[in-house]
Amino acid sequence: MSELKVRSFTVSLDGYGAGPNQSLQNPMGERGGELHKWFRGTRTFQRMMGDESKGSDGPDEDFAARGFANLGAWILGRNMFGPVRGQWPDDSWKGWWGEEPPYHVPVFVLTHHPRPPLEMKGGTTFYFVTDGIKSAYDQAMQAANGKDVRLGGGVATIQEYLRAGLVDEMHLAISPVLLGSGESLFAGVDLPSLGFRCTEHVPTQFATHVVLRKD
Amino acid sequence: MSELKVRSFTVSLDGYGAGPNQSLQNPMGERGGELHKWFRGTRTFQRMMGDESKGSDGPDEDFAARGFANLGAWILGRNMFGPVRGQWPDDSWKGWWGEEPPYHVPVFVLTHHPRPPLEMKGGTTFYFVTDGIKSAYDQAMQAANGKDVRLGGGVATIQEYLRAGLVDEMHLAISPVLLGSGESLFAGVDLPSLGFRCTEHVPTQFATHVVLRKD
Repeated sequence: MSELKVRSFTVSLDGYGAGPNQSLQNPMGERGGELHKWFRGTRTFQRMMGDESKGSDGPDEDFAARGFANLGAWILGRNMFGPVRGQWPDDSWKGWWGEEPPYHVPVFVLTHHPRPPLEMKGGTTFYFVTDGIKSAYDQAMQAANGKDVRLGGGVATIQEYLRAGLVDEMHLAISPVLLGSGESLFAGVDLPSLGFRCTEHVPTQFATHVVLRKD
Repeated sequence: MSELKVRSFTVSLDGYGAGPNQSLQNPMGERGGELHKWFRGTRTFQRMMGDESKGSDGPDEDFAARGFANLGAWILGRNMFGPVRGQWPDDSWKGWWGEEPPYHVPVFVLTHHPRPPLEMKGGTTFYFVTDGIKSAYDQAMQAANGKDVRLGGGVATIQEYLRAGLVDEMHLAISPVLLGSGESLFAGVDLPSLGFRCTEHVPTQFATHVVLRKD
C-alpha cells in the first residue's frame, strides 16, 4: 500500500532543517550545505549530478538510494520549489533544478498561487496545489498509483503533515553540524504521542541515520 | 587551566534531556532510562555500581571515562540533587545516591534553600549555593584547584551557564530514542552564536557522541 514518507531529511545536531538567512543565492541558508555532506558523497547524488564514476557505497549510499526507491509522486512545500517570498510567485520560475529536475514523477507543490501544471523534461510535472495539504496528499496518492509518496519538506510542511497524522515513516539524517537557529523539526511536535518510535539507527562517519515509524 | 565542562550529557533524537513526568520513583522521567543505555553498558558505569567484571570497552566507555577524568568539582542544578518540588527542600534528603555518592569531590548544588554543607562518604561534600550561578562557578573553580569542573545539568542549568558564557566544552550523547516533550537542550540557545562548533563526532551502536567546543 502507498505510504507517505519523509526520506533523507537532514537536520543539524540542534534539530534545524536549514540554516538561517535562506536566499536565492543560498537556498539551504548559512552552513546549510554542511548539513548535506553525507548525501553529497554518495553514488546516488553523484549519479544525479551526471557522474556515474564517483560516489561511495555503504550505509549513507543505502539510505540515499532508498530515498528514491518505489516513488510514485512527491509533495513539496512552497519554499522547496522556489526562493524566498517576493521572488516567486512568478510563472517564469521553474524550480531550482533546471530543465530536467531529479524527480521523474508528478510533484505536488503546496502554494497559495494558482498556476497551470508545468511539464519538465524527464517525466517531472509540477502541479500547484492551492487547496491545502489534504488535497495535495490525495492527489499525490492517486498519482503514485500504488507506489509511495515522498514528502520533501521543508520543516513547516513536514510538521503540518505530521500533525494531520498523514506521515507513515521518516528517515532523518542527523549531521554533526550546529546551526543555532532556523526551523526546528522537533519543536512543538510530540512524535511519540503521534505514534512514532525509532525503528532503525545506523550511524556513519557523516551522519546518524534514524528511521521513525508509527507503531 | 580549569574549564567548565558538560560531560556525558545525554539527549534524545528530538533534543530532550529527560523524559516527561519526572518523579521520585522515576527521576529520569518516562522513557528517560532508555536515554542512558549507552552509559549503562560501559565499564565505567559498572564500576560505579560496584561490579569490576562487567561492562564494555570502546568509544562509549572512552567517553564515559573522560567524563570523570581530571575533575576537581561538580555543579548540579537543584533537580539533579533532589526530586520534584514539594518533596525537597527537606534537610533529611541527601541526594539520589545513598551514603557514598559517585562524585568524590566537592559538589555545588544550586538552590534557593540555604542549608549547611553535607559531607558524605568517599570524599563528596555537597555545598548548597543560594546566590546564583556565577557564585557557584567561582566556588567550584576555586575548589577544583586547577582541575576541571563538571556541570551535571539539568537542561535549564546548562542553558543558564551557556548564556552566561561560562561553559568551555560539552560532550553530548544523542540516543536513538524519541521523548516527545520535556526540556529541550537546544531550544532558545544559539550555540554557534555562543561560539560553539562540533569538534568531535563519534557515532556508536548506542549513541552519537559529539564534542562541542568554543572556537
